[in-house]
Amino acid sequence: MTDPLPPGSTVGILGGGQLGRMLAMAAARLGLKTHIFEPGPAPAADVAHRWTQAPYDDDAALDAFAADCDVITFEFENIPAKALDRLAGAKPIFPRPNALEVSQDRLTEKRFLMEQGLSTAPFAPIDGPVDLPEALAATGLPAILKTRRFGYDGKGQARVTDMDGAGAALAELNGAPAIAEGVVPFLSEISVIAARGQDGQVAVYDPGENVHVGGILFTTTVPAALPARRRTDAVLIASRILTALDYVGVMGVELFVTPTALIVNEIAPRVHNSGHWTQAGCAVDQFEQHIRAVAGWPLGDGTRYADVVMENLIGDDVARALTAAADPHIQVHLYGKAEARPGRKMGHLNRITGPAP
Amino acid sequence: MTDPLPPGSTVGILGGGQLGRMLAMAAARLGLKTHIFEPGPAPAADVAHRWTQAPYDDDAALDAFAADCDVITFEFENIPAKALDRLAGAKPIFPRPNALEVSQDRLTEKRFLMEQGLSTAPFAPIDGPVDLPEALAATGLPAILKTRRFGYDGKGQARVTDMDGAGAALAELNGAPAIAEGVVPFLSEISVIAARGQDGQVAVYDPGENVHVGGILFTTTVPAALPARRRTDAVLIASRILTALDYVGVMGVELFVTPTALIVNEIAPRVHNSGHWTQAGCAVDQFEQHIRAVAGWPLGDGTRYADVVMENLIGDDVARALTAAADPHIQVHLYGKAEARPGRKMGHLNRITGPAP
Repeated sequence: MTDPLPPGSTVGILGGGQLGRMLAMAAARLGLKTHIFEPGPAPAADVAHRWTQAPYDDDAALDAFAADCDVITFEFENIPAKALDRLAGAKPIFPRPNALEVSQDRLTEKRFLMEQGLSTAPFAPIDGPVDLPEALAATGLPAILKTRRFGYDGKGQARVTDMDGAGAALAELNGAPAIAEGVVPFLSEISVIAARGQDGQVAVYDPGENVHVGGILFTTTVPAALPARRRTDAVLIASRILTALDYVGVMGVELFVTPTALIVNEIAPRVHNSGHWTQAGCAVDQFEQHIRAVAGWPLGDGTRYADVVMENLIGDDVARALTAAADPHIQVHLYGKAEARPGRKMGHLNRITGPAP
Repeated sequence: MTDPLPPGSTVGILGGGQLGRMLAMAAARLGLKTHIFEPGPAPAADVAHRWTQAPYDDDAALDAFAADCDVITFEFENIPAKALDRLAGAKPIFPRPNALEVSQDRLTEKRFLMEQGLSTAPFAPIDGPVDLPEALAATGLPAILKTRRFGYDGKGQARVTDMDGAGAALAELNGAPAIAEGVVPFLSEISVIAARGQDGQVAVYDPGENVHVGGILFTTTVPAALPARRRTDAVLIASRILTALDYVGVMGVELFVTPTALIVNEIAPRVHNSGHWTQAGCAVDQFEQHIRAVAGWPLGDGTRYADVVMENLIGDDVARALTAAADPHIQVHLYGKAEARPGRKMGHLNRITGPAP
């Protein structure tokens, strides 16, 4: 536990995409400066105090970045461990790197979740074709083969419906270490955006109900259609995960809702697309909540003032932004990305559907 | 009426204070870039794409600034007319400079309001001591002497309670052209934040009730304690002013509430401190509303989702920000100013007091 960072301090953010951009704006609202570290194009740099454009193996750039920052955080999981170690030697990093070690590897993550007594889809490690029969016997069919590392938005995944197709599906993953996951017959997918402060205080937003299209999040609706009991379960699950990791910051926890239980799908140790609705529904949104946690400030309590439907603008969807802006209940958020490539997240809409009950 | 500016376009902002900063963040949310023109320190530059630091009489800097911008707006009234003329020759400026001509001069503004059939405090021009007897006879006593130009936050004002003290009060204004204003015995002070788009569409937020301390806004509370009839009057007054000026952008209209009428105190052709509550209460806040108007986008409709009390953090008040952050219903906004001088606006708090009825 450190003292709260005073206004004027600098928060370093690894990654310069839209999450970094919205984190930087939240930090600015609190009078904090931000310094973006991003090798590629950085929409976040438009609203940040400084930008270091350098690769993650540029030690001199990492050192200069760390020297300029009072605390460091990140907007994506796949930061090279070596860069993280180097930075951690110089300045505090929140969330602590142990959370990245868990979430960067699907197998480690699943095992961690089981150790916490939480339910996951049945899974088994696959290091090569020889492991397929036993693994798929454990998970049942259909199953999904996923690379252990570097998957996002449905990338690095292949579906297996019968044993005959298993070898070909595994080949799609190009020999990367993988796991097989059983397919959970779920009623719905929800996610819980939770935060934990440096003092161990936990604050959880209402669960949102997610709809994915083509492996990419399409909409999040709050409140999720969910019995009160499940809502409590979701909060307790998120809280258990954050506390077990001695976590500091915002985390997204994706859950499958089945008739009998909540199954943890995956965790993301960062602000999460399914938490964008908080910008329209809460006094303190997930971005500010994360910055507050990282800076040692008190957290918002997650109280929701409005019902919201968040819709992603993906690729050419961005052309709808101006029409959407004409709906007085819609908040438009665009990420300042120049080119609308297919599958690229260009912005999102938060439609306020009414005051919270 | 121009086509809406596409995302990626650049909005130029004259002035780099906290209003410019919040305008820049609103523009960023819409995927627009901002370019700040500010001779002095510029908290807005921290979140803007570019910053030109140059005086307003630097023609080369003005030209380069205009060349980089697709449209130009401003965050304060007292922009030198010559700079404005030069910029207006190169790029569209919204609000149009006629609104500045009216609001930069208290006498012109009062006469304009009268021409619209609106009520103002009794007033009379004062060009020198010789005008005092007639002017104060017209306004009655007590009265307030105000410089016609460059006054803000109670500066450039002197109170007159009897004829004997009138000469000394006028001397405080250092010979600047002035007006005398009668003191209106009001029940309360409210302000209306209104916007008008390039298509003539007008959108008005709920009036907020203002409390000033030492001539500086201290709190704004929405909803204002106001009969429904007065609420309608306030909307109509604001709408009449905006339409008469063929105005584009957000305007703050300050009104005195008396037992029998609403009296227009003054207008500000820009986003306004008394509209900061919209950040916590509306889908589209006043800053985004202004950017939308200036960029030719559709306006939000001003629907309020929450009751809010806005409180300014002035000077050393900023030390309270961290304590305030511990209240889960408070949104903290700090402006990134280095030094907390007395009377300096350092930030504000938006406290959500409940959902809107």
